[in-house]
Amino acid sequence: MDVGFIGLGRMGRAMAARLVAGGHRVRVWNRSPEAARAVEGAEPVGSAEEAFSGDAAITMLADDAALRAVLVEGGLLDGAARPAVHVGMSTISVALAKELAAVHGRAGVAYVSAPVFGRPDAAASGALNIVAAGEDGAIAKVQPLFDAMGTKTWRFGLEPEKANAVKLAGNFMIVSAIEAMGEVAAFSEGHGIPGADVLAMLTNTLFASPVYKNYGAMIMEGRYEPPGFTLRLGLKDVRLALEAGEAASVPMPFASVLRDNLLDAIAHGEGDRDFAALATVAARRSGR
Amino acid sequence: MDVGFIGLGRMGRAMAARLVAGGHRVRVWNRSPEAARAVEGAEPVGSAEEAFSGDAAITMLADDAALRAVLVEGGLLDGAARPAVHVGMSTISVALAKELAAVHGRAGVAYVSAPVFGRPDAAASGALNIVAAGEDGAIAKVQPLFDAMGTKTWRFGLEPEKANAVKLAGNFMIVSAIEAMGEVAAFSEGHGIPGADVLAMLTNTLFASPVYKNYGAMIMEGRYEPPGFTLRLGLKDVRLALEAGEAASVPMPFASVLRDNLLDAIAHGEGDRDFAALATVAARRSGR
Amino acid sequence: MDVGFIGLGRMGRAMAARLVAGGHRVRVWNRSPEAARAVEGAEPVGSAEEAFSGDAAITMLADDAALRAVLVEGGLLDGAARPAVHVGMSTISVALAKELAAVHGRAGVAYVSAPVFGRPDAAASGALNIVAAGEDGAIAKVQPLFDAMGTKTWRFGLEPEKANAVKLAGNFMIVSAIEAMGEVAAFSEGHGIPGADVLAMLTNTLFASPVYKNYGAMIMEGRYEPPGFTLRLGLKDVRLALEAGEAASVPMPFASVLRDNLLDAIAHGEGDRDFAALATVAARRSGR
Amino acid sequence: MDVGFIGLGRMGRAMAARLVAGGHRVRVWNRSPEAARAVEGAEPVGSAEEAFSGDAAITMLADDAALRAVLVEGGLLDGAARPAVHVGMSTISVALAKELAAVHGRAGVAYVSAPVFGRPDAAASGALNIVAAGEDGAIAKVQPLFDAMGTKTWRFGLEPEKANAVKLAGNFMIVSAIEAMGEVAAFSEGHGIPGADVLAMLTNTLFASPVYKNYGAMIMEGRYEPPGFTLRLGLKDVRLALEAGEAASVPMPFASVLRDNLLDAIAHGEGDRDFAALATVAARRSGR
Repeated sequence: MDVGFIGLGRMGRAMAARLVAGGHRVRVWNRSPEAARAVEGAEPVGSAEEAFSGDAAITMLADDAALRAVLVEGGLLDGAARPAVHVGMSTISVALAKELAAVHGRAGVAYVSAPVFGRPDAAASGALNIVAAGEDGAIAKVQPLFDAMGTKTWRFGLEPEKANAVKLAGNFMIVSAIEAMGEVAAFSEGHGIPGADVLAMLTNTLFASPVYKNYGAMIMEGRYEPPGFTLRLGLKDVRLALEAGEAASVPMPFASVLRDNLLDAIAHGEGDRDFAALATVAARRSGR
Repeated sequence: MDVGFIGLGRMGRAMAARLVAGGHRVRVWNRSPEAARAVEGAEPVGSAEEAFSGDAAITMLADDAALRAVLVEGGLLDGAARPAVHVGMSTISVALAKELAAVHGRAGVAYVSAPVFGRPDAAASGALNIVAAGEDGAIAKVQPLFDAMGTKTWRFGLEPEKANAVKLAGNFMIVSAIEAMGEVAAFSEGHGIPGADVLAMLTNTLFASPVYKNYGAMIMEGRYEPPGFTLRLGLKDVRLALEAGEAASVPMPFASVLRDNLLDAIAHGEGDRDFAALATVAARRSGR
Repeated sequence: MDVGFIGLGRMGRAMAARLVAGGHRVRVWNRSPEAARAVEGAEPVGSAEEAFSGDAAITMLADDAALRAVLVEGGLLDGAARPAVHVGMSTISVALAKELAAVHGRAGVAYVSAPVFGRPDAAASGALNIVAAGEDGAIAKVQPLFDAMGTKTWRFGLEPEKANAVKLAGNFMIVSAIEAMGEVAAFSEGHGIPGADVLAMLTNTLFASPVYKNYGAMIMEGRYEPPGFTLRLGLKDVRLALEAGEAASVPMPFASVLRDNLLDAIAHGEGDRDFAALATVAARRSGR
Repeated sequence: MDVGFIGLGRMGRAMAARLVAGGHRVRVWNRSPEAARAVEGAEPVGSAEEAFSGDAAITMLADDAALRAVLVEGGLLDGAARPAVHVGMSTISVALAKELAAVHGRAGVAYVSAPVFGRPDAAASGALNIVAAGEDGAIAKVQPLFDAMGTKTWRFGLEPEKANAVKLAGNFMIVSAIEAMGEVAAFSEGHGIPGADVLAMLTNTLFASPVYKNYGAMIMEGRYEPPGFTLRLGLKDVRLALEAGEAASVPMPFASVLRDNLLDAIAHGEGDRDFAALATVAARRSGR
């Protein structure tokens, strides 16, 4: 397929490379052109308009603001050569996704929301889990692209914003696991037991899953740099989950604790380290 | 080995049966004699004293009160034929375990704390994870018994109470996982997405671990009866974790939320259902 | 003085009437003209532009959106006859207040932020507490207006947004008092003691202050209608406090609990009742 | 009246002195005899038994453990010359008060629970608020003593433990007020506004009550020593409130936050300072 790819951060570059490896023609664009050149086998184009065309265009940007700037303020939907399908893969708010669904409807461009689970290494090996929502026809068209980037595509209905709600729910569950491990480590240390020993036992038995093993190891080793995903971005996602919960009148007490503790971490200089550094809050609060 | 086994609830019966299957001589005692007879191949004895003797004696009772009643008030440590090693496998408070360690020292009976992770089905298949703490010599003596009951024994030092702290930490992490899934289900339903679909995706990918699969399935199906472990007992364990955390000045905000929500569940009649019913609280609070 | 007054809700009407009583010439405007006619002795004008002129113009609108619509999108600052001083008395976000301070600076119109504490009855009797921030000269000019509307003006520096931060802090403390009384009432009822008796004792002794007496009485009587201030607006203010706290990396665990419980109340149909109805959440959660 | 007074801490001494001033014969006893001599006009006696006699005996001890040690383990209820009425004024658990009511019934000694609100200075001036529960006849007998020690006696029914529940509810509300002020101070400082200025405004207007003025002043001045009531004792009372709430299945999310933050404060060395030092937690968590 002929695909445009907008947004070449660590995740975007790895995903675009998978599309190239999958035999697709990939036109890439990024606000800083260096990044564009960094994707071997892809064709850097000079403007977002040139990338927003073809059989499909994928956007993988940092947040609501970045997507708004490029897509809405950039007027891409009014462009001459618009893509058959726009696949929004960024982690954005449910509210913006809903708004975009309406805007695309008016513009006559099919819109599919398809945020992903997986860190850069998973993206590089095409091992992402893709959470997709949108019209069946549109998703069918871009399925070959999903197959090149992920191990499995999970469908969540026709309204694009539902995929974003699911992405936020998953990230909330990841941060909750980090907080629980942080409290367990502080509790153990408080009783003279190495927190790493306790987490090693738990993450190899009852909690032997990727999230617990991955973040558990970082907490056990106190290894929070370089960040795979910064704590500041973790706070952004928890905030988006709280906002979406509020829109549906769903109290989320765990998410509220996470928000407070992430702020505590940022106030203590952890904002740019990996969000597993949330675990340092429980330790500090217990006087360690 | 010649082993006495005191406390034949659903877990105790299954564990005693594994010892019999392992070729050990097992003298069993329970406050209600019917339970004692229920362990095929084991030898029911008429008093706790008769069971508290031999190469080792295992206690597997409901809580601090039950263990105090049988062991301390029952005066077992003053008995004539005391065991070489007493293995306390009940989930009790860190404070009581510490007190028992001292009492056994004065009585000249080796004491090992060895609570377990695993539900009745795991106990029946000898697939428990055993968390042990105590003197090396004493643990070496009873290792054959652990091997008959569990897949692995995890050591946590010489002070028995440390094993109990680790058990409480693990249970806290399990209840935290249930709460996180409950909030995710309520959040999803609030956005018109079946909570079961979201949990199915998460527990088969990032969270593909026994705890999430087991409790996730119960939440997805709303199947909280019969209880494998009652919500009321879940509250007891969270309370013990909070008390132990308090003794070490460790704030545990997630545990505090769990305590409040478990009380909410009990106030709404969920106390005797499986503790996965904690998930009903997030649903009810969001008006569902 | 010659004053324009924009926004004639229950608070605005009462405040404008005080200005009239204070001998000022008051030109009033409201999106629904009926409200404008409702202020005896004031002069209804046909447009926001006509009101946004004179010695000073006061805006008293519902929220950020309403103020943005009228002032910014309405282009009032580009008008021909702009006021010497614009006094923003609405409860708005710290972020918007900061933005408006900059916008007014460029437009060459003095801007003073002056939100108030007090419900409609206090406004009617000129008993408001006014929290003001802005340049000394500008505040000095409008002091006669503050004197007509309030018992005291509290100064909080030169940056207008600081007054809005103080207003949000005060509202957070009010909602916290309501929550604490709600938990006390549920706790008392749980022990067979009429919550009203306990609140009566506390609000007449240690907590004998306007906020506790006022909301305590509503909780004791379960009198949440008609609303003096709706629970939905209470949630808005707690959200603004949380957002402002986040901007300064200040964790506010009480505010997080308030947010969750206000959502619980809204999910149970209390959104349009007085925000003292927050107290119904603690009762319901305890099974009452 | 002929009164025995047991427990001469800072509160007890002041209360006994008021009884002397009220013309009553007061026999005082304390575990450390120096304290007993410190009450001018009172008659030190050599044993708790001698004090536990006469028309009435008052106990004012630190906690459950101290009262159990003196009264239950000390076997006072089996003594020869027992008092007509035992007035328990200590802040103890609802559970112990309930147990004592039963024990006194069997012993044939009237028992009245009458904890107080007010700090040592209030006790010295007879300005305490007394919360009493017990049989009407018994309370009528000791009313003259209450009149000598307090400004008002608040009745809460016939079961003594109800007075203890009310005392715990009141203390919970006090600590909640301290936490709310602490969060407001941190929030204000985060926005470049002196927290003291904001608290000064709020505690002189909407929150102009003894509790807010008293603790607000301590927070504004950062004056936490000498302690009127230590933070460690504050944690004890919050724990008793949480336990009593749990017994009645009443979730108290504010109390849970208080518990966590008091532990944070203790972990940072604030345990022996005044419990208003709870306010330092919000400041520290925000990086100040």
